[in-house]
Amino acid sequence: MIKTDILIIGAGPTGLFAVFEAGLLQLKCHLIDALPQAGGQCSEIYPKKPIYDIPGFPEVLAGDLVDNLMEQIKPFQPGFTLGERAQTIEKLDDGSFIVTTNKGTKHHAPIVAIAGGLGSFEPRKPLLENLQKYEDNGIAYIIKDPEIYRDKRVVIAGGGDSALDWSIFLADVASEVTLVHRRNEFRGALDSVEKVQQLKNQGRLNLITPAEIVGLQGDEKLESVLIRKTANAAEDIKLKVDSFIPLFGLSPKLGPIADWGLEIEKNAIKVDNTLDYQTNIPGIYAIGDVNTYPGKLKLILCGFHEATLMCQSAYQRIYPDKKYVMKYTTVGGVTGFDGSKKEAPKAVVKSIN
Amino acid sequence: MIKTDILIIGAGPTGLFAVFEAGLLQLKCHLIDALPQAGGQCSEIYPKKPIYDIPGFPEVLAGDLVDNLMEQIKPFQPGFTLGERAQTIEKLDDGSFIVTTNKGTKHHAPIVAIAGGLGSFEPRKPLLENLQKYEDNGIAYIIKDPEIYRDKRVVIAGGGDSALDWSIFLADVASEVTLVHRRNEFRGALDSVEKVQQLKNQGRLNLITPAEIVGLQGDEKLESVLIRKTANAAEDIKLKVDSFIPLFGLSPKLGPIADWGLEIEKNAIKVDNTLDYQTNIPGIYAIGDVNTYPGKLKLILCGFHEATLMCQSAYQRIYPDKKYVMKYTTVGGVTGFDGSKKEAPKAVVKSIN
Repeated sequence: MIKTDILIIGAGPTGLFAVFEAGLLQLKCHLIDALPQAGGQCSEIYPKKPIYDIPGFPEVLAGDLVDNLMEQIKPFQPGFTLGERAQTIEKLDDGSFIVTTNKGTKHHAPIVAIAGGLGSFEPRKPLLENLQKYEDNGIAYIIKDPEIYRDKRVVIAGGGDSALDWSIFLADVASEVTLVHRRNEFRGALDSVEKVQQLKNQGRLNLITPAEIVGLQGDEKLESVLIRKTANAAEDIKLKVDSFIPLFGLSPKLGPIADWGLEIEKNAIKVDNTLDYQTNIPGIYAIGDVNTYPGKLKLILCGFHEATLMCQSAYQRIYPDKKYVMKYTTVGGVTGFDGSKKEAPKAVVKSIN
Repeated sequence: MIKTDILIIGAGPTGLFAVFEAGLLQLKCHLIDALPQAGGQCSEIYPKKPIYDIPGFPEVLAGDLVDNLMEQIKPFQPGFTLGERAQTIEKLDDGSFIVTTNKGTKHHAPIVAIAGGLGSFEPRKPLLENLQKYEDNGIAYIIKDPEIYRDKRVVIAGGGDSALDWSIFLADVASEVTLVHRRNEFRGALDSVEKVQQLKNQGRLNLITPAEIVGLQGDEKLESVLIRKTANAAEDIKLKVDSFIPLFGLSPKLGPIADWGLEIEKNAIKVDNTLDYQTNIPGIYAIGDVNTYPGKLKLILCGFHEATLMCQSAYQRIYPDKKYVMKYTTVGGVTGFDGSKKEAPKAVVKSIN
């Protein structure tokens, strides 16, 4: 059982910044995210794209923003349960919560902050017989650790940035990379498209277009895929593979959280914006894109503010008798749980003679 | 008469960021600030101090944050009335406002956003006879343009960072700099204290401590000051000067805004945090440290959020019939009023053969 003060569901920018504000209040955080790494959409969907409306950054790449936030919260040593989806919640008699993931990992905390963005990202899956049989057994929709494909035969399907970028990356790792797409045209960053063309010309990548994967074969695990280039099934290509990675995009779903008894409106969680972004269940907050209230804007900068007010409220719930006096970081510095201390250079009092 | 869409009172970080969010909505802004430059406290009081709780910046100097914000809002060409204090407000029949400064500059806008921080910074003044007579006539409390002291005889009073830093700066500009402080000890950054000691040793700066300015003389303008080192008035030093700059710190005062008919609570302006941070007077908003509502935190990051929601509400007031559909900057880019355009590199659709 993982224990923490604030259990944050969703490790996007809002969830990450909550760790910092909680840390200033000496509260520890643990984050759960269905994606294999922190950063939410910023890391998974558009790490190389610029954001222009983060205050103080005329321009920042989404991935760099996440890196900065990770650096900012480092002193507060957050815990992470990644690649698992928060599935069920149970309220104990003392008002605290146990949240269990789809893989059975249990987390216990007096406060739950849902920072789930647009929901947990679920891969769009191809319609293929026996698909489920091979999931995690030759088929993966998200690449968690590219090293597991080292010296393996991999077939990637898709025509967007993910398919292009992973084909390029795995060309150096796998023994054989085949990229299958139902059109000749790919949609992505110009240099990615050009790099794939180059790898193909060099014979370091097999390109099969326009084509689709139409069958999966293998006894225990995936052993081969059937690739259809024409309308004639007799001409299907049978390709021996170790892994099939369909990269057809991710679509966010509120998922199991929708069944937690929270008030939901337009696929978002209603919160009390007059005070602390708490939901209808005391002790459960919702911050960032996942929540809704009058005038809500789904902007990262709003999530930062909501996370900050949530932490203050959480502190008061956890320590109802303590009076917290806010200290500016410029004045008080930042004292990490790891013993680190950042602070402004102290003024000296010194005579001049 | 200066005309704009949103008249922002206070050019601190919150007011500056409002320009950006307004710009995304194609609304123009003009800012009034009593200080001689943009940035509020960040520029005037602690430009060289680090802030640790700006989201995405593990550490940022207050002055750098302001520089970044100025760069971020540049495409939206804000106007500035600096060194003047917003004094009076008049509501016209059409619901728009005219705001006049203490120097008589008039501004006309349908929306007024007060982003006044802790108030307009008023200098702490020495208690001296005839002080007012010489104000702007030999005496200044804030240095707006150091060039006006070129080749002049300047006496600075004070023992903190401002007194130290301006003494150092003006040592290269003025013909003669005298620093007077009532103690031998100065309080400031170590390197500033050391630099002043060095300038004094080199004879490039006159240091008179412990001492106080006790008199001002001059017919039309300030011509000399009386400096008292001992309790014996007969030993007062008469020093011929062109300028006397008492730097005893700035203290924020809500000032004339307190008389505008706004609901005030604990020296802050009450706003509707359930929606748009509007005050009790429709069309006047208050954002950032100057406002108050249940759970209010006086943090820069909260001001950013408040500014953003304010702009949305202002847009609806100005264009009640238009429906604005928010577009993420990552998707839509930023189109400046100056014709500039920033946007994410476009994806291409390209065949690979």
